[in-house]
Order: sequence, then structure tokens, then C-alpha cells
Amino acid sequence: MPYRAPVSEHLFLLRHVVGYDRIAATPRFVEAGDDILAAVLTEAGRMCEEVLAPLQRNGDLHPARLENGAMRTSPGYAEGWKAIAEGGWIGVSGPVDHGGMGLPISVATAINEVMSGACLSLQLAPLMSQGQIEALEHHASEEIKALYLPRLLSGEWSGTMNLTEPQAGTDVGALTTRAEPKGDGTYAITGQKIYISWGDSDFVENVCHLVLARLPDGVPGTKGISLFLVPRNLPDADGRAGQANGVKVISVEHKMGLHGSPTCVMEYDGATGWLVGEAHGGMAAMFTMMNNARLGVGGQGVGVAEAAYQQALAHALERKQGRSRSGVIADHADVRRMLLGMKADVFAARAILLACAAAGDMAKATGDADWSARAALLTPIAKAFGTETGIRVSETGIQVHGGMGVIEETGAAQFLRDVRVTAIYEGTNGVQAMDLAGRKMMDGGEAAMRLIDEIEDQAERARASAPDLAGPVWEATETLRETTEWLVAQGDMDDRFAGAMPYLMGFARILGAHFHLSAALAEPDGAREKLARFYIEAMLPEHTGLLAQARSGASVLYALDLDELAS
Amino acid sequence: MPYRAPVSEHLFLLRHVVGYDRIAATPRFVEAGDDILAAVLTEAGRMCEEVLAPLQRNGDLHPARLENGAMRTSPGYAEGWKAIAEGGWIGVSGPVDHGGMGLPISVATAINEVMSGACLSLQLAPLMSQGQIEALEHHASEEIKALYLPRLLSGEWSGTMNLTEPQAGTDVGALTTRAEPKGDGTYAITGQKIYISWGDSDFVENVCHLVLARLPDGVPGTKGISLFLVPRNLPDADGRAGQANGVKVISVEHKMGLHGSPTCVMEYDGATGWLVGEAHGGMAAMFTMMNNARLGVGGQGVGVAEAAYQQALAHALERKQGRSRSGVIADHADVRRMLLGMKADVFAARAILLACAAAGDMAKATGDADWSARAALLTPIAKAFGTETGIRVSETGIQVHGGMGVIEETGAAQFLRDVRVTAIYEGTNGVQAMDLAGRKMMDGGEAAMRLIDEIEDQAERARASAPDLAGPVWEATETLRETTEWLVAQGDMDDRFAGAMPYLMGFARILGAHFHLSAALAEPDGAREKLARFYIEAMLPEHTGLLAQARSGASVLYALDLDELAS
Repeated sequence: MPYRAPVSEHLFLLRHVVGYDRIAATPRFVEAGDDILAAVLTEAGRMCEEVLAPLQRNGDLHPARLENGAMRTSPGYAEGWKAIAEGGWIGVSGPVDHGGMGLPISVATAINEVMSGACLSLQLAPLMSQGQIEALEHHASEEIKALYLPRLLSGEWSGTMNLTEPQAGTDVGALTTRAEPKGDGTYAITGQKIYISWGDSDFVENVCHLVLARLPDGVPGTKGISLFLVPRNLPDADGRAGQANGVKVISVEHKMGLHGSPTCVMEYDGATGWLVGEAHGGMAAMFTMMNNARLGVGGQGVGVAEAAYQQALAHALERKQGRSRSGVIADHADVRRMLLGMKADVFAARAILLACAAAGDMAKATGDADWSARAALLTPIAKAFGTETGIRVSETGIQVHGGMGVIEETGAAQFLRDVRVTAIYEGTNGVQAMDLAGRKMMDGGEAAMRLIDEIEDQAERARASAPDLAGPVWEATETLRETTEWLVAQGDMDDRFAGAMPYLMGFARILGAHFHLSAALAEPDGAREKLARFYIEAMLPEHTGLLAQARSGASVLYALDLDELAS
Repeated sequence: MPYRAPVSEHLFLLRHVVGYDRIAATPRFVEAGDDILAAVLTEAGRMCEEVLAPLQRNGDLHPARLENGAMRTSPGYAEGWKAIAEGGWIGVSGPVDHGGMGLPISVATAINEVMSGACLSLQLAPLMSQGQIEALEHHASEEIKALYLPRLLSGEWSGTMNLTEPQAGTDVGALTTRAEPKGDGTYAITGQKIYISWGDSDFVENVCHLVLARLPDGVPGTKGISLFLVPRNLPDADGRAGQANGVKVISVEHKMGLHGSPTCVMEYDGATGWLVGEAHGGMAAMFTMMNNARLGVGGQGVGVAEAAYQQALAHALERKQGRSRSGVIADHADVRRMLLGMKADVFAARAILLACAAAGDMAKATGDADWSARAALLTPIAKAFGTETGIRVSETGIQVHGGMGVIEETGAAQFLRDVRVTAIYEGTNGVQAMDLAGRKMMDGGEAAMRLIDEIEDQAERARASAPDLAGPVWEATETLRETTEWLVAQGDMDDRFAGAMPYLMGFARILGAHFHLSAALAEPDGAREKLARFYIEAMLPEHTGLLAQARSGASVLYALDLDELAS
């Protein structure tokens, strides 16, 4: 079945669940009213259905590859990129004065999600550019902005992020790439970077790398790291991609999926770079880019989950089963359980994603610290739960297909193979969980408690009209409150980190219930209320086990010696 | 890191957890004492480490393929098969009078698991032969047994199972393959079968297919199905593989994994077959084969989980992380949580598997109906939880590897791609769950309650010495008891089936706790007790959510119309 952009679902969530009207009511986004929203989502959705979705299998069957040092991308990807670029979909929330649309991040997030569902491996390319645009907007000099931003926003050029080195992944402070001042304000960058998504392509005039490296006086660890912009081709006097710079792709990884997106090993050999942000302030600049990218990666998970759900549903509605109520396997009890679970989780993950984006918009529009804190709190949840949902839903989609699920021609397995890396890149989901249980609780849990209060208030108000839904949500939120209090009270960070991942997943379960309840209240007695009831009765109870594990602490985890871990 | 056969773990479990001594004390297995057990497991383990494990990547990189109609298997697989055959590992529990070792099924199950961990795609070949041997032993004529069993047991010939057709998967009664009597006691078999594992190879003299087909007077549905033995080559007067029969492989599927095992589309064009068992009694004969195969497939899941755990642990002990306690990522809290979860689940799934096999042995040796009922009850749990564990542990293994997890060279992704189908073949895990909640409860829940009583008795006895472990196990088992009572009381089977899968998974969680407690009691104050504590504190609480979903019933599941399932 061809992929259908979930435009009406996004409109419903933005309008009735995450408060888009509040965003459009701010002076900053006054021109992004409901009519614009609907028009933009519809137009982007059409492009995704017509142009991107047909490319999905191409990328898998004909991976991007190096041919005599030149990158050859998958068939049709150049046209796909062109459609994304010409539609303006790289710069949905990009700065207007450099050619972006200046729309809210929540709109860009919805569109990114739809592009991911249509063709994840290609969508990763504009996502990387968007992160770079955001970083340059906040940290680069005016000259750099004037030169690079219009070209990145138009899609003539593309952007990448270069953090990882063979010995420095999560432990980014261990990196060894060097930057030597050349005396003319530029730097010579030397070193090797790995896992560089879309490190090159054959459909842009220039590829701009944002590279973390250490200046000669940079201290060891993260505090001695600076950020540099290193274009593949040095811009000439007219701002065109000119002479080749000292950077090249030396190999492309063989991955389990996402074959259409070349994951490159990059070699920098005295390449010319420009400092972005302060010397030794690379991590701060990188975080701007990563926060944007984390939201985007969460959206990748949701997008793939949506596509995998659509395909599994189509199969289940077509495949005959004599003994089920309607004669198709969608009415087989266990298949129904899988389908409803997938659908309910896509809703939950999407709502969390858009709520996070909407909080970012409100922070941007109002400067209110509470909104910033809300966005910061939700970002690791949106990233980790979004991508876990992508994996789980794709995984369940395979199961719905039965034997056909493992046969590559159906495409069900590709969703899982493609989406798997999203739980790893831009900070593994474990890192997201530690961010939530550590950094995001450095306010003593204040931001979390404010959200918990809101969820309980909603449940209280809903008790009269929907007691069977509101009661369990309130109860679960109390458990989340107690767990959060326990967490914040732990002095030894390992006690927090030991259960950080189940804490994040339990938190997401409850947020999902909150948003399902919002949907049920917005459209009582319809399909949304029925889905909310399934989620709250069948899926919400999962939080009990997750939050119990969240409180289990480090001592039980570290009781075994390292050599006792072997069988 | 090279794969290490978990021989000492199997010995511990067989000796101290599932009561192997009781099996060896029966007259039937009196010659299978502890010394034989240790010698056989050690010898099989060595073969797996030295011969099979090095083939694992070969199968993935060089899939079995058809070349001008002839099957070409992956490099080294012929030698691997030879080592399996010559070691006698096809016939560990096979009949002695035809060349088998006649050892308990629990021993064969342990060895099958180790072969799976070493090289799953090749191990599937002897597993298929074993199922056929079991079916022929119970249902074939003496002539067929005398001709086929010695050759299948020695590995000169191999066996397959042919159930599925394009329109008849789980719904096997829909099959259309025909069997026409030829008047000489044989039948002409005509039809197409799909998903036939090891439908052909280049390392045996003959491939023997057990084929479900319908006789001219067979009624529609499962009651009109008969079972036929259809060799690729017709045996000549000397019992050698002679003239080609009317059966051929017409294509090999492109699967997401298990590339070394050719999954074939078979065409039968008037092929000569022999009836096995009664006319129209094919399902009964097939079930003999499937029960054996289900246990075997559960073992495949456990084997892959073990191998994936070993590899993830080796990576985590090697990969540096500056800030962890010991400087390697295995001491990073979130990585430790993953590793302990993997290890604890491998233990749980293996214990369930071996307990199921041991119950089968006791049933065989004593004829006691309670043991048969115990084996029947545990079979769907062993199959589904074993394979879910294979998937989850492989999945977590990828995450432990970080970015390297999705790079194919590490092998982490292959475990997941290979093991994924085990949740689907030999009856999907959803079918296993319905078997547990349906057929296996037709005794009114008696067999389940007997097991629940045993678990509670153990917990009661352990209260004095290990209250922190025994208390939660007893509590959880009470919830399982209540859920089982609820289940048995439901008249509408859809109410049982709606939550059958979470019921099975919750049941497995509690069985896992029971066996972890057994291990802790057998070796107090050591690594086993620490692992049991982690499982009981951090993982057992998952049962709450699972069993709540088990009781959620069909109404909430069928509330949405089919067209409301679309977004």
C-alpha cells in the first residue's frame, strides 16, 4: 500500500492536543495561523507521497556508494532532494531573512516526520542541514551566516555534523582531531571522523561539515573542544563552490539498514576551516545543533512507526483468515492487539514529539524560562521514546505480516533495519535517559513536577466526564511523582542512572496516557476515546514495572563483579 | 570474540534447577547418567566452537542460492553438516535401534541450543531432520522407518516440513495440495509449498519432505489433511537415493536474515509420496513434529541470545569509557543495566526451555499424565519466550555496541536479523499464546495451577533464608493465579485471546523468577544470588503490566471498527 501522509492526524494533534493556537497567537508566529498550517502540511504531505515514498526501496536495494572516490547516491535521490529543496522543506523553521519560511518548529517537526515516514534515508540529509542551519544561526559570524545560510536553506549546499572518532563516541571529550591557526583567521583541520551521515552526495554543489576539533591550547576533555565549519569546496569570491578543500570520504559503512544514506569515514588533512562560536566553546555550539537534531531524530522514529503501521494494517485488512469475525486477520484477536498497540503508541510518541516542539516554539516566542525548561525536559523523552516506538512498531509490523514479514520484498523488515540506528545516533537512548535523570533534574525536579501537576490537574478535571480514563491516569502520575521524588533525592548519580532508561520509558507511558486523555476529551464517544481506553487499560499498566525498575538503584546493578558477568 | 559453548551453565541448570537426576534415575534413561551428560555436552560444545561458529558470517555474506536449478549452500556448510552428522548430534534423542543415541530430550535440547548459538542458519537443517525423525518414529510404517530413520539419523539424508502454501499459513486448513492414489500404495502429490527451510542442499544424498496434502475424499479444513513422505530421489532396491522424483525448488526467498538457510518455494508435480499415519490424520502426525520443533525453535532463540550476549559483553569489557568505575563501558550504569538484563533473561529463557524438555523426558520415562501436561503447558512458553528473548537480547546487544551495532562487520546486527523469524515459524508467537490460553487451559487450568502451587511452595520454603527474594516471587505468583482463574472463567475465547500474548509473557516472567530463585538457593551468596536479586527487583515487576493487559478482555480490543484502525 502506498504511504499516506498523516496530515489530518497532525492537524488534530497540533490543534487539540498540544495547543498550536497558543503559538499562533504570539507576535512571533502571528503569520503562522491555522490556514497556513493546514496548507503547508497538505503540500508537504503531497510531496512526500508522490516523490519521496517511491524512493524508499531504491535506497535499500541500491545503496549509496563510492566510485573512484566520488559518491554515487541511490537512484532517484537527486530528484527527491530537489523536490525537498524546491518546496522549501529544508527551511520550514529557518530564518526568513536568509530564505527560510520562519514557521514554528512544531510545523517543521511534523513535516520532518512525514518525510521520514516516506523515505528515512533521504530525509536524514535535510535533517543534517537543518541542524547546521540552527547552529550557524546562533553561533556563526555574520559573514558566515550571509554566505552559508541562503545556500543551505535553498538546498544548493548541504550540511553534516562531525563529532565521532574511532575512540570517541559517547565519550566525545576523547577526540583527537586538531585545528591549527593558519594566521589568516582560518584553521587547518586534521583528523579522522566516523559515522558521518551524508558525508557527501552527488546532488549538491557543496557539502559543509561542522567539525569538532581541538585547538593547540585546548585542554583535554570536552572543555578544550572548538567547532569549525569546513566546506568540501572552498567558496570563491562570488560565493560559489570553488577549489577542493583537504577533506574526503575514505569509506562508506555497510550498515544493517538506511542504505540510501551514506555513513562516511571522513579524512581531514589540513583542511581549511572557520571557527564557529567561541574558541573552546564547541560543545555549547554543538548542543544547539544536537537539541534540534534530537527532536528531529525522535520524529524519524515516529515517521517510520507511522509508515510501518500503515503497511501492517493494509496487510492485515487484506490477508484472509477464515475463522476471524470479518474474515481478515485484522480481526484475529492477537493481530488486533498488535495493531491497536502500534496505533496507540504512534499517537503517544507523536504527541510527545509535537508537545516538545510546541514548548520550544513557546520558549522562542515568549522567552519564558518555564517553556524552555519544558522543551529541555521533553527533548530526551521525545528522542528516546520516538525512536523506541519506531523500533517496536516496525518490529511488531514484521510480526503482523507473519512469514512475509522477514521476506525483504514486502518492505516490513526494511523499516526495522532502517530505523534501528535512530536509537543510537545523536546520543544513544541511554544517554538521553541519563540526560533526563541527571541534567534535566538539576532544578531539583521542578520542571518535571510542573508537568506532573498539569497531568494530574487534567485527570482531576476529567474525573466527572470520563472516570474510567481519568482515574488510572491520575494514579499512574502519582507513581511517577513518587519516583521522580526518589530520583531527585539520590545523591549518588549511579543510583539515578541505574534506572534512567526505565524511568524515561515510564514517564513516556504516562505522558502518552495524558495525551490520549486529551484526545478523548476533545472528541468524546469516537474512535479517539476508544483508542485512549485501550491505551489506558492495556498499555498504561506497563508503567508499574518500568517505574519499579527506575527505583531499583545502583547497588543491585553493581553487585556482580565484571568477571561474574561472563557465564 | 569467539563463541564459547555454555556447557557449565547447562550442567548447572540440568543438575540444580530442572532435576536431571530424576530423569537419569528412571529405568528408561538409566544409562544417561551425570558422567555421560557432562561428556556429551562437552564434546558437542567443542564441535560448535571449533566447526560451526566460524561459519556464522559465511552464511550471511554468501547466502545459499539456486544455480541452474541446483542448490549451492554457503561456504563451509557442507563440512559443518558433516561434523554435526558424524558427531551423532542429529540423533541425540533419536531411537537407538535406528542409530540414535537415545538420550533424554533435555540433553538434545541443550545441544541444539549450543549449535544455534554457534550458527543458527546451519543448525536449522538438523532441527528439521529431528522433527521428521520424531514424526516417522511415531506415525510411519515399519518399512518406512527401517528405510528412512537410519539415513536421517546418520545425516546421509535430511528432512523438511511442508505445511505452508501461499493462501494457507497459520490457517493451515486452507491448503490445496492434492494427493491422488496411484493404485500401488503410493500417491501422486501435486501443489506448491512455501517457506520450506532447507528445501534442498548440496551436502546430502537425499532430501525427504513431509508434506501435508488432501486426498480426493478429504473434507475441507484441517480434518481432511493427510501427511506424506516425499523424497527428492526415489529410494532404489538397495535403499539408495535413485531416480529423481517430481519435486523441485523453484525459488529461494530473500530474507532479512538466516541467509545461510535456503527458504524454498517447492513445486510438487505428481511426485510420488507415501502416506504417513492415518488417511486424514495428517494434523495429528504433524503436531508430533511441531511440538518437537517448537521446543527446538525456543532453543534457537536462547542460543542466539547467548551468543549475542557473549559478543556484547566482550565489546563492553573492551570499549573504553573514561568516566566509568573501571574505565570500560561495562561499568557504565546504563550498559550494565542492559548486560544484566540480557544475562538474567538468557538464564530465565534457558531454564524454561530445559524445564519443558525435562518434563517431556519424565513423561516419556514414566508415562505419567501430569508430566505430559506439564510439558504441553510449557511448550508454547518455551517457544515464544525463548524466541522473544532471542530477539530482545540481540536487539539490546546492538544497543550495547553503540554505533558499531548497526555496522554489519561486528556481527551484532546479524543475530537480530537471523533470529527474527523464530518468532514466526513453527506457529507464530501469537499462536503459541493462544495455544496456552486456549487449548492448554481446556483442563480448567489444572496443569497451570499445579505449577503455580509448586512455585508458591518454593517461595514459602525460601522465605526464611531469602525473604527479599521469596516475598516478591510469591506475590507475583498470586497475581498469576488470579489472572489464570480469570482467564479460565472467560466463556468467550476472544476474551482469553485478547490478552494471550501478555499472559504468556507474564507467565514467563514469573517462571523466570522461580528458576532464578532455585539457582540462588542452590548457590547462595554467589553470583547467581546477585543475578536473581537483580531479576526479581528490576525485571520481575514487569509482570504487573503484562498480567493487567492479560485481563483487559476483548471488548476494548474490538471497540474500534476496522475502518477506525486507519489513521
